[in-house]
Amino acid sequence: MDLEKLSDSLCFGGRQQRWRHRSATLGCEMSFSVYLPPQAEAGAPLPVLYWLSGLTCTDENFVQKAGAQRTAAQLGLILVCPDTSPRGAEVARAPDGEWDLGLSAGFYLNASEAPWASHYRMHDYVADELPSLIEAHFPASDRRAISGHSMGGHGALVTALRRPGRYRSVSAFAPICHPCDCPWGQKAFRHYLGDDESRWQAWDASVLIGQAQERLPLLIDQGEADAFLASQLRPEALVAAASAAGYPLTLRRHPGYDHSYFFIASLIDEHLHHHAKALGRLAS
Amino acid sequence: MDLEKLSDSLCFGGRQQRWRHRSATLGCEMSFSVYLPPQAEAGAPLPVLYWLSGLTCTDENFVQKAGAQRTAAQLGLILVCPDTSPRGAEVARAPDGEWDLGLSAGFYLNASEAPWASHYRMHDYVADELPSLIEAHFPASDRRAISGHSMGGHGALVTALRRPGRYRSVSAFAPICHPCDCPWGQKAFRHYLGDDESRWQAWDASVLIGQAQERLPLLIDQGEADAFLASQLRPEALVAAASAAGYPLTLRRHPGYDHSYFFIASLIDEHLHHHAKALGRLAS
Repeated sequence: MDLEKLSDSLCFGGRQQRWRHRSATLGCEMSFSVYLPPQAEAGAPLPVLYWLSGLTCTDENFVQKAGAQRTAAQLGLILVCPDTSPRGAEVARAPDGEWDLGLSAGFYLNASEAPWASHYRMHDYVADELPSLIEAHFPASDRRAISGHSMGGHGALVTALRRPGRYRSVSAFAPICHPCDCPWGQKAFRHYLGDDESRWQAWDASVLIGQAQERLPLLIDQGEADAFLASQLRPEALVAAASAAGYPLTLRRHPGYDHSYFFIASLIDEHLHHHAKALGRLAS
Repeated sequence: MDLEKLSDSLCFGGRQQRWRHRSATLGCEMSFSVYLPPQAEAGAPLPVLYWLSGLTCTDENFVQKAGAQRTAAQLGLILVCPDTSPRGAEVARAPDGEWDLGLSAGFYLNASEAPWASHYRMHDYVADELPSLIEAHFPASDRRAISGHSMGGHGALVTALRRPGRYRSVSAFAPICHPCDCPWGQKAFRHYLGDDESRWQAWDASVLIGQAQERLPLLIDQGEADAFLASQLRPEALVAAASAAGYPLTLRRHPGYDHSYFFIASLIDEHLHHHAKALGRLAS
């Protein structure tokens, strides 16, 4: 597997890098970003937090806007940020002007319907191909955690719930909690998974949490001034499902915070500590 | 003076805002960004750090990439980020593809030559009009500090040196230290100020520091892996001039750091503390 380094900058004593590779799962070239904390220089494998970004993002938004490197450097966590969809001229796309389907809107699932099924397999990419690549080419252990924002919060929750044993902890900022029952999710699922709504449930955190085979440390932060809260995000659906299933969920509501990266930056350190405890980098 | 609020997000308990106004100095509409720390809610005036960005930037780069709000919230500092040039259809611009002249490349000076002189008066805007506006419309005192990056580092140094009494402290990341003797500076000065090189000296920090009427706390950080270090930035010229003038200058060279915002983010907290001491927000 060829890896091409696109950029490499010193950041808080560690390395902020961007790489490109050919993804066999997605059938296209993909970019991803990696932050290697200073402890990575010693060569012993470090745990990895995978971050999944939201609609319209790439692998770079979190890297540039969240300010996570400072605390990742203190805790000795590797941060890995994949892109939000397959990319390239060969990849199906939505009509111009639609930003909630197709490019930058892969929803971290495996599509079954044409024209999406041939490339849109972000679940397998995020859960399997990318960790294999990271653990083979970087000083990364198989201690994994996963987090994300909005569509990427949905992705973090669903990926962790679908793949017991692969992650030690999960968190999300303003996740789409019940995509079967919100406009963004319904549109994406209809295109990617077809009209049979029973097949959507395998990609909905508020359904999956009721069938969960493990209990991971789970932290969600939600701003109360988030313009998408009532219409798209629906955290109350996840809270009800988690409660019914006896799944411990810490969901914190923050007055005044909106859906932006200013909200994420304000609270990212607490998520990093949440994951560091589960990953063995802090006393729990 | 009409101020139009473009955005407003809670960030580390304070407000990250973006505003638009009609600048009389520049003869165009301008955007600027303001971070109001949580202490601003009490209404008592707080000191202000003015941040000047580099080539190709706007008022938003620092806001999104530097991660300065966390520590500004702790220290009670207001952060104000102007744009890097006049803007709009009426403003002269360089030919397509030139990014080191014209839009986003105002060099924080007052141009004397056509077609630039009618709008390119960023020095007067940054040193006079913008602080007057900030101090009239926000809970901001006249305790001011100034900092910046690259072209904006040049701007911070020159603005402070030209205007004794207006700032309590100055700092810069990877500033253009001697624009009379580097390609970026020579190109800009020739267009904005004309062919008479004797007129350039009034906008060159390595000249002005020899004539300085006050001694401000002055901190400069420079990465040694910065691709522009030898050709454009020339800190050794400023060090020599400061030494000859007996101006105390702390210039720190950091192995491995490049010209990017990852370098700025890694060290911004130390600059905020440098300014907070001079502004009376920390014991000095």
